[in-house]
Amino acid sequence: MRVYLDHAATTPLRSEAREAWLAAADEVGNASSVHGAGQRVRRLLEEAREQLAATVRCDPIEVVFTSGGTESINLALVGLWQARPAGTDRLVLPDGEHHATMETAEWLAADRGAVIAPVPLDTLGAVPVPAFAEALPGAALATALIGNNEVGTLNDAAALAAAAAEAGTALHLDAVGAAGVVPVDFRGWRAGASGAGGLVALSVSGHKIGAPVGTGLLVVSRHARLAPLFHGGGQQRGLRPGTQDVPGAVALAAAMTAAETDREVEAARLVALRERLADGIRLALPAAQVLGDPVRRLPGNMHVLFPDAAGETLLFLLDVAGIDVSTGSACQAGVTEPSHVVRALGRSERDARSVLRITLGRTSTDADVDAVLAALPGAYERAVASGARSGGGS
Amino acid sequence: MRVYLDHAATTPLRSEAREAWLAAADEVGNASSVHGAGQRVRRLLEEAREQLAATVRCDPIEVVFTSGGTESINLALVGLWQARPAGTDRLVLPDGEHHATMETAEWLAADRGAVIAPVPLDTLGAVPVPAFAEALPGAALATALIGNNEVGTLNDAAALAAAAAEAGTALHLDAVGAAGVVPVDFRGWRAGASGAGGLVALSVSGHKIGAPVGTGLLVVSRHARLAPLFHGGGQQRGLRPGTQDVPGAVALAAAMTAAETDREVEAARLVALRERLADGIRLALPAAQVLGDPVRRLPGNMHVLFPDAAGETLLFLLDVAGIDVSTGSACQAGVTEPSHVVRALGRSERDARSVLRITLGRTSTDADVDAVLAALPGAYERAVASGARSGGGS
Repeated sequence: MRVYLDHAATTPLRSEAREAWLAAADEVGNASSVHGAGQRVRRLLEEAREQLAATVRCDPIEVVFTSGGTESINLALVGLWQARPAGTDRLVLPDGEHHATMETAEWLAADRGAVIAPVPLDTLGAVPVPAFAEALPGAALATALIGNNEVGTLNDAAALAAAAAEAGTALHLDAVGAAGVVPVDFRGWRAGASGAGGLVALSVSGHKIGAPVGTGLLVVSRHARLAPLFHGGGQQRGLRPGTQDVPGAVALAAAMTAAETDREVEAARLVALRERLADGIRLALPAAQVLGDPVRRLPGNMHVLFPDAAGETLLFLLDVAGIDVSTGSACQAGVTEPSHVVRALGRSERDARSVLRITLGRTSTDADVDAVLAALPGAYERAVASGARSGGGS
Repeated sequence: MRVYLDHAATTPLRSEAREAWLAAADEVGNASSVHGAGQRVRRLLEEAREQLAATVRCDPIEVVFTSGGTESINLALVGLWQARPAGTDRLVLPDGEHHATMETAEWLAADRGAVIAPVPLDTLGAVPVPAFAEALPGAALATALIGNNEVGTLNDAAALAAAAAEAGTALHLDAVGAAGVVPVDFRGWRAGASGAGGLVALSVSGHKIGAPVGTGLLVVSRHARLAPLFHGGGQQRGLRPGTQDVPGAVALAAAMTAAETDREVEAARLVALRERLADGIRLALPAAQVLGDPVRRLPGNMHVLFPDAAGETLLFLLDVAGIDVSTGSACQAGVTEPSHVVRALGRSERDARSVLRITLGRTSTDADVDAVLAALPGAYERAVASGARSGGGS
């Protein structure tokens, strides 16, 4: 039995989502068809839309189903860019965003003439609200993570959205790691926004919350100006054409509803597990440093710097011991670049190669924490020795 | 029990696909993760890729997983356009293509400067090879359906691909209605192609062949020049970033493999059912005209013109009788436009509003055919009367 502590990469399918998917998959019909079969499936889709709207606090019509987080983020950034107000070309981009955001922004800069206005993170990994607010006036759009997918630090989403409303700049929030884990309040965060400014789009990925991979959504304000990424049939207000994945939608709704129902109890449980893990690591390995904000963070996320040890070596040694952890975003796995998020905290390149991300989730137990605490000291010792032999620690 | 005869809109999930999906969904791990859990899931993905490559006859590395037909078509057309040879701006577009293709081409024309070179269909709904070939030299790219999704006519895919190879023009084939139903031979159709010319991309949608909605693939030749639609992690040669949907991929592979195994026997069965339906309609309603090519057509597709009756009224009356059929593409359902495909056969706008598409599939039986034959005459009589009352027949 392996110990899976990489829930931020993907988390097991929830039984509620599996059952919802199976029931809907047995219904035959295309939700765009006007006949009885199509309309029955259509009702399932609209019920899913209503359930999801309740979990992220938006109107059902504002829910646009996508194939996942990467598509949602691309649709938000490219779509808002294409429909931006005349005469604007700045894109406000905090450091340390997810690769889907960074690469899309870089494409907009290289191919579409966007001018990136970076916002440095503070040393705990948060987007400083004053610096963000200062960059907003006159920008075409802005984006920010709610919870950093590597170091786990939570941003003040309400304050970022209020600043965007004040500036009249369209804002996308990346809720991929946050939805179902911390409160998401699209309607509340739009307070004070008018027209196409303020919070207008918010991305959610299904498989991070126990829905199937390949599901996700973009909340799109009815006031947003947004161009589609795909072209085709007129599905989803024309914003996301293509036959709608009804089993995926109902499974996503089931997973999000279950996550919201459990959220506070589960968050408290994960924080307790995480703190026991952190305390155990500090006790056994006084050199280790837990990064990110100690309090305002995703409940299941722990991110640790192990000085003089290569994160990749630690990952390998834990893998051999049957423990699955990560050095950073799975989306960049196999790539041996130092973490750009750790660099954005003001750390050295060497430090950015010496980190592990340990993420707990719904199936995590005390026994998992015990297994990591048992394996880490030996792994650390060997990793440091291996680094010393190869002449550098990383 | 309803009679479902809209298999071209979507067809029931195959049991092989459901089982494959469930088994893979119980595996935990992100295929991009380097740890043991990730690598186990990765192996499932690579096995699915190999199975799919065998069914469409390409190399496994040429299989790019997408969220379905619309995304595949968009990726092919926009991606080939973005990476086109310098100095070319023509896009060869037959009349009567699927809306995903038409709308994407129109966007490329409106937003990206593409010049559309239309190719009229013949009166049976096929793309005439000589006219297609004549339009190719010097074009940036060309596209064509293998089997028309409305009238069912099959194109000579091998000849279209040979013409593209001869001209050195990149060709995308839309195999959405054809894959798993008629032979697809990507490697064979590339015969004589060199570099980025000839057949370089081919679209497949999962839910049309009994895989889950939300699955699909684009076959992309290793020689193709193609830009991605999404930006993010480096998954799938950078052509389609985002966490890979492994349950979806293995379900798609299971469905395509099952479809290929049964293909010839099932095609013969569907042709026999279809011909019995056609004969019965001709006998009962001599005014009805079966459109499209009588022989070179998708086995389960029947497309019928009912003079002086509105297709929508017929659809409604059959729906009330518990029979699900279509007036055309489900992707445009709810839209009361006359069929652009029927217009492309040289028919009047009035004719283009007087058609039904009846599509049989894996679960279709003799009893389904009997049910349609029992209901159609009365429905036709009432539809004609209703049209006469409202003053026009459509």
